Amino acid sequence: MATKTIIGVMGPGEKAPPLYLQLAYQLGGLIAAAGWVTLCGGRNAGVMEAVSRGAHEHQGLTIGILPDAHPDAVSPFIDIPVLTGMGSARNNINVLTSQVVVACGMGAGTLSEIALAIKARKPVILLGYPPEDILFLQKIEAHNQIRQAESAAEVIAIIKEILNL
Amino acid sequence: MATKTIIGVMGPGEKAPPLYLQLAYQLGGLIAAAGWVTLCGGRNAGVMEAVSRGAHEHQGLTIGILPDAHPDAVSPFIDIPVLTGMGSARNNINVLTSQVVVACGMGAGTLSEIALAIKARKPVILLGYPPEDILFLQKIEAHNQIRQAESAAEVIAIIKEILNL
Amino acid sequence: MATKTIIGVMGPGEKAPPLYLQLAYQLGGLIAAAGWVTLCGGRNAGVMEAVSRGAHEHQGLTIGILPDAHPDAVSPFIDIPVLTGMGSARNNINVLTSQVVVACGMGAGTLSEIALAIKARKPVILLGYPPEDILFLQKIEAHNQIRQAESAAEVIAIIKEILNL
Amino acid sequence: MATKTIIGVMGPGEKAPPLYLQLAYQLGGLIAAAGWVTLCGGRNAGVMEAVSRGAHEHQGLTIGILPDAHPDAVSPFIDIPVLTGMGSARNNINVLTSQVVVACGMGAGTLSEIALAIKARKPVILLGYPPEDILFLQKIEAHNQIRQAESAAEVIAIIKEILNL
Repeated sequence: MATKTIIGVMGPGEKAPPLYLQLAYQLGGLIAAAGWVTLCGGRNAGVMEAVSRGAHEHQGLTIGILPDAHPDAVSPFIDIPVLTGMGSARNNINVLTSQVVVACGMGAGTLSEIALAIKARKPVILLGYPPEDILFLQKIEAHNQIRQAESAAEVIAIIKEILNL
Repeated sequence: MATKTIIGVMGPGEKAPPLYLQLAYQLGGLIAAAGWVTLCGGRNAGVMEAVSRGAHEHQGLTIGILPDAHPDAVSPFIDIPVLTGMGSARNNINVLTSQVVVACGMGAGTLSEIALAIKARKPVILLGYPPEDILFLQKIEAHNQIRQAESAAEVIAIIKEILNL
Repeated sequence: MATKTIIGVMGPGEKAPPLYLQLAYQLGGLIAAAGWVTLCGGRNAGVMEAVSRGAHEHQGLTIGILPDAHPDAVSPFIDIPVLTGMGSARNNINVLTSQVVVACGMGAGTLSEIALAIKARKPVILLGYPPEDILFLQKIEAHNQIRQAESAAEVIAIIKEILNL
Repeated sequence: MATKTIIGVMGPGEKAPPLYLQLAYQLGGLIAAAGWVTLCGGRNAGVMEAVSRGAHEHQGLTIGILPDAHPDAVSPFIDIPVLTGMGSARNNINVLTSQVVVACGMGAGTLSEIALAIKARKPVILLGYPPEDILFLQKIEAHNQIRQAESAAEVIAIIKEILNL
């Protein structure tokens, strides 16, 4: 099988706080170093841009699942822009295509991706989340899917555990 | 314009608690009595079935946006089953098509719809939600979109206020 | 079961020839008279507008599956605008949701709907098509799905035969 | 920009004639040799499998846009399986994501992709098509988008011309 391991990293766009941009950049670099593909929403903003830049600068392959039909807003660090033209409905594709979903920062789009990941029974890692958010999301899940991490390195360790590597 | 007012009611399927089934049934009846169309996920389970049954038994029109490509699991109280064949990606259609989104009960699918509604800047009414869930969701929104209600009648009053009726 | 019979009518938008607009208007009226729901692409142009106007003026219910996320371009004769926000990917929803697909006029979008209907094994009626187009499309199908008609009345007769009415 | 050139190759699955499988295999190899990414429907059948095998065996990167939510039917020659879970609605993503769309063999799914590509104003190359099919499809387009080729090498030459390479 040629199939590569794909790690999805979800997070806010324009309004992402600097802390999460830094975490996303580090995480992209570590995903690349592990030999995995980085998947994100693909736009040239926020966590999407930071994680793809981190992966790209560490020779990783990046795939972006865009809400748009046109490539105008694609991050320059995306190797493979998948143009869906279906707006936020593409969030479900992000989740289905990822072996593990990492949430880095919060927002309405990110929350929809966490929820869709839980629905699709995907493992979800919450990176740098406050305890009350973790508690809320653990109430929603039914299959012990949610894990938490405080650093990019910890995310990688959890992914290796999940994938039995 | 022939366009009818469409109220979306989102809630869990098979695992919906009886309290929310009762609220959904009442709400469907009141939406029908107001002359509006009831939109839901369309399956023959949980809040979807309860709200469409309530609307149907009060001579209301019901539309279900199904995840499936085939009509096998359509609620018998749905007049118009829209077969999307796109799984949970159809949750975004539920939200875009509704003038107001009412959440009745919680689950991963419902949470994704609340989040997608916030993302799409739709008004969202949380029916019978615990305070901590309301607090969490209010942190996500940015446009004062979220309202809360304790009864089906209160939901109708809020919708009339939102729609300037 | 509350489920209504839904007939999909597909055809070009802005560039639709007058002949097909007239056929679509007549067909909408006859679908309404038969007590069925008229489904179309929902925009305020071409065959979509003509068929929904025909249905609306004969007291029929009309549903439009829109490519857009916003209702700006909805035909005023559509009762239920389903806002998909997914562009031409919504063409597959048009087809899956219709019990029978009628093609009235030709264009790239319409051709995609005919092809998707064949793929989904839906019955397809070609209204007023030239013989060479019918021959081409019959080569594509594998389940004797394609029928041809020269008038709106003939379409209704074929639908009744297909639905065993 | 990290963005790679993506060439979409569309064609029938299980029923693909041997001639088109051979052309698809050759084409995948030549796309890989040109340094481009091969995009296809991603399933382990027909033209999808042949073109991805050709690309994979010539060290090319392959992306498959799957109709399914699960990876059960992914071709073993696909590097990046994008799991859409949206059935044939994913055909529009195939087309939007490709800089050039090549059709290799015919069927209902392939015809829908040609039509959607014309609708999205993408360049379309018909490989090994009979003259009457080319004539029919040229009637549908409005922007001189359709080109024809008799060999995989000719497809590559046309792509280079289209992309100004």
